[in-house]
Amino acid sequence: MVNNGTEIPIMLIQRSRTFRFRIRNSQLTAMALKRVASSAIRALGSSSAGSDSSITLTRSLHASAGGKKIVGVFYKANEYASLNPNFLGSAERALGIREWLESQGHEYIVTDDKEGPNCELEKHIPDLHVLITTPFHPAYVTAERIKKAKNLQLLLTAGIGSDHVDLKAAAAAGLTVAEVTGSNVVSVAEDELMRILILVRNFVPGHQQVIKGEWNVAGIAHRAYDLEGKTVGTVGAGRIGKLLLQRLKPFNCNLLYHDRLKMDPELETQTGAKFEEDLDGMLAKCDVVVINMPLTEKTRYSRLEIYVIISVSNE
Amino acid sequence: MVNNGTEIPIMLIQRSRTFRFRIRNSQLTAMALKRVASSAIRALGSSSAGSDSSITLTRSLHASAGGKKIVGVFYKANEYASLNPNFLGSAERALGIREWLESQGHEYIVTDDKEGPNCELEKHIPDLHVLITTPFHPAYVTAERIKKAKNLQLLLTAGIGSDHVDLKAAAAAGLTVAEVTGSNVVSVAEDELMRILILVRNFVPGHQQVIKGEWNVAGIAHRAYDLEGKTVGTVGAGRIGKLLLQRLKPFNCNLLYHDRLKMDPELETQTGAKFEEDLDGMLAKCDVVVINMPLTEKTRYSRLEIYVIISVSNE
Repeated sequence: MVNNGTEIPIMLIQRSRTFRFRIRNSQLTAMALKRVASSAIRALGSSSAGSDSSITLTRSLHASAGGKKIVGVFYKANEYASLNPNFLGSAERALGIREWLESQGHEYIVTDDKEGPNCELEKHIPDLHVLITTPFHPAYVTAERIKKAKNLQLLLTAGIGSDHVDLKAAAAAGLTVAEVTGSNVVSVAEDELMRILILVRNFVPGHQQVIKGEWNVAGIAHRAYDLEGKTVGTVGAGRIGKLLLQRLKPFNCNLLYHDRLKMDPELETQTGAKFEEDLDGMLAKCDVVVINMPLTEKTRYSRLEIYVIISVSNE
Repeated sequence: MVNNGTEIPIMLIQRSRTFRFRIRNSQLTAMALKRVASSAIRALGSSSAGSDSSITLTRSLHASAGGKKIVGVFYKANEYASLNPNFLGSAERALGIREWLESQGHEYIVTDDKEGPNCELEKHIPDLHVLITTPFHPAYVTAERIKKAKNLQLLLTAGIGSDHVDLKAAAAAGLTVAEVTGSNVVSVAEDELMRILILVRNFVPGHQQVIKGEWNVAGIAHRAYDLEGKTVGTVGAGRIGKLLLQRLKPFNCNLLYHDRLKMDPELETQTGAKFEEDLDGMLAKCDVVVINMPLTEKTRYSRLEIYVIISVSNE
C-alpha cells in the first residue's frame, strides 16, 4: 500500500513539548518518513512559524539556516540488509532518506553504535541538530546528553514511542520530540489478532511437537479452542482497539470494550461491540482480554497487572 | 457455542455409500456427536427406513434389533484427560456418550490399542456392529478387517475424513461410512488465517529469539509484513474458502478466488473477492496462496504442488 495522503496534520502536545505527526499509512514507508522528516526539519528552519505557528522553538539556531547535522541511530542489518529492497529501517539503508537529505544541504551521519562514553553517537552529541532513531534500537537521550547537545533541536522517532527520551529534560531545554503517530496501528492490531489465535488455538506447543517429531494430540487438544463464540474484551478502544474489533467481527465472537468514553455509534453498530462501563464487570465475562491502553503513570500499576493478557476459560 | 440446530440433514453419496451428516455447529461437541450417532444408529436399526428411506442396508442385522456392539477407538489423553471437562475426544472420555449409548441398550467398548494382530481392536472386529474413530488416531479399516467383521454395519468418523477406510471394500460389503460434514470448517478457516498471519508477520523466528534471549531485529524485520494491502488468493472457495474470505475482509487485502464456479454474488459483494477463471493467472498476482480443495485423484498431482502454501513477495 502506498501512502497517498497529501496532508500531514501536526498535533502539538504542549505539556511535554512532544508533537506528533499523523500519517494515514499503516506502514512506515520511506516516503512517509521523508514527508514527516521534511515537515519537521522545515518547521525548525523557519523562524516565523507560518502555518506551524503552534510550534515554538526556544533555542536559537546555531547552524546556518540551510544545512543541519542530522544523526540517525539504527540497528545493523548485516547479512539481512540486501535481502529485501524495501527493508529500510537499518543502519545500512538509513530509512532511505540519505540522498534526499543531502540534496537539501544537510549532513547525515548514521551509526548503530550508541552506548557508552566512547561510542560513535557520543562524538556527535555536541554539534548535532537532529537525532533520528527507532524504537527497537533506540538512542537513549538522557538529561546528561541533552546538556551536552548545545545545537540539538529535534528528536525524531521513526515509529512510535519516546520512552528513550528524558522528556522532562527535553521540555526544559525547549527541544521538540516527535514521533510518527498512527504509523503502527494496523501492524499492532494484526499482531494482536495473530496472538489471540495463537493462544486460543494453542499453536506454539503444536509447532514444537512438529519440530521434535512428536504426536501427542491430547497434549495440544485439551486446551485448543475455536475463537468463534468466545467473549473478547478490549481495555481501551482507541485507534488500535477499534481496528482489532473490526478484524474480530467476522469471527462471530461476543465483543466487549471498556474505555472512558463510548465509541462512535456507527462503529459500535459495525463491529457489534458492547460498551462496558465497569472494567471489573467486563473482565469477569471475558475469555480473552486485550489491553490497548497507553502506559502512563495512571495505568502503570493498575489492577490490570494481575491479569494475563490472554486468558481462556475451560468452556 | 452450543449447537442448537434441531435438524440434521443426511446426504447419501451413492457412489461410495458414504453418507455425511451436516451439523450446524463448528465444534464437535458431545451433543452434536450424540445426535449424529443417534441418527446413524437409529437408521441402522429400522428395516423400514421411513424418513431415511434413501439409506439402503444390504447386510441383514445379525444382532438383536435393540442392542449393538459399538467400539470406539480414540487416543489416550493420560494426564490431560482431567484438565478440561469439555475435552471429550479421548479414550478416557470416549466422546461423552457412554451413558447415553448404554441407556439405549448398546454395548460400548473403547480402546486406543488399534495396531497389529493382537491389539484390542482386533479382538472385537468379528462381532462389532459400529466402529467410531477420530481422524488424529484413526482405526484403520482394511479390506482384511472388513472381511473379518461379519456384523459390521456402520463406520463413523467423529470429525472429517474417511481416508482410514478402504472405501472400495466398504462399498462392496454394503457398509455405511459416515462422517460429520461441516464440523471443522470454522476451525480450519481460523487456523488458516492464523497461519497466514504467522507467516506474513514472521512470528516463529521472533518467538524463537525470545526463547533463546536473542535480540536481532533485522533477522525478523527483513521479512515481516503487514497483511494489509497484500493480495490473497484461495484455490477453492467452498465452505472453508468462503469462511476464510469473510475473515480476511477487514484486513483490507486484495482478495481473489479460483474455483470451478463463481460464488453467490451476494457473498462476492460482501467479501469483495474477485473471481479468477484462470488459476495460473491468479497465482501470479498473489502474495499469499491458500489451497482449499479436497484431495482427490484429480487434484493430487496438480501443478499446485510446485507452490508453497504461503508465498510472500518482497513488496
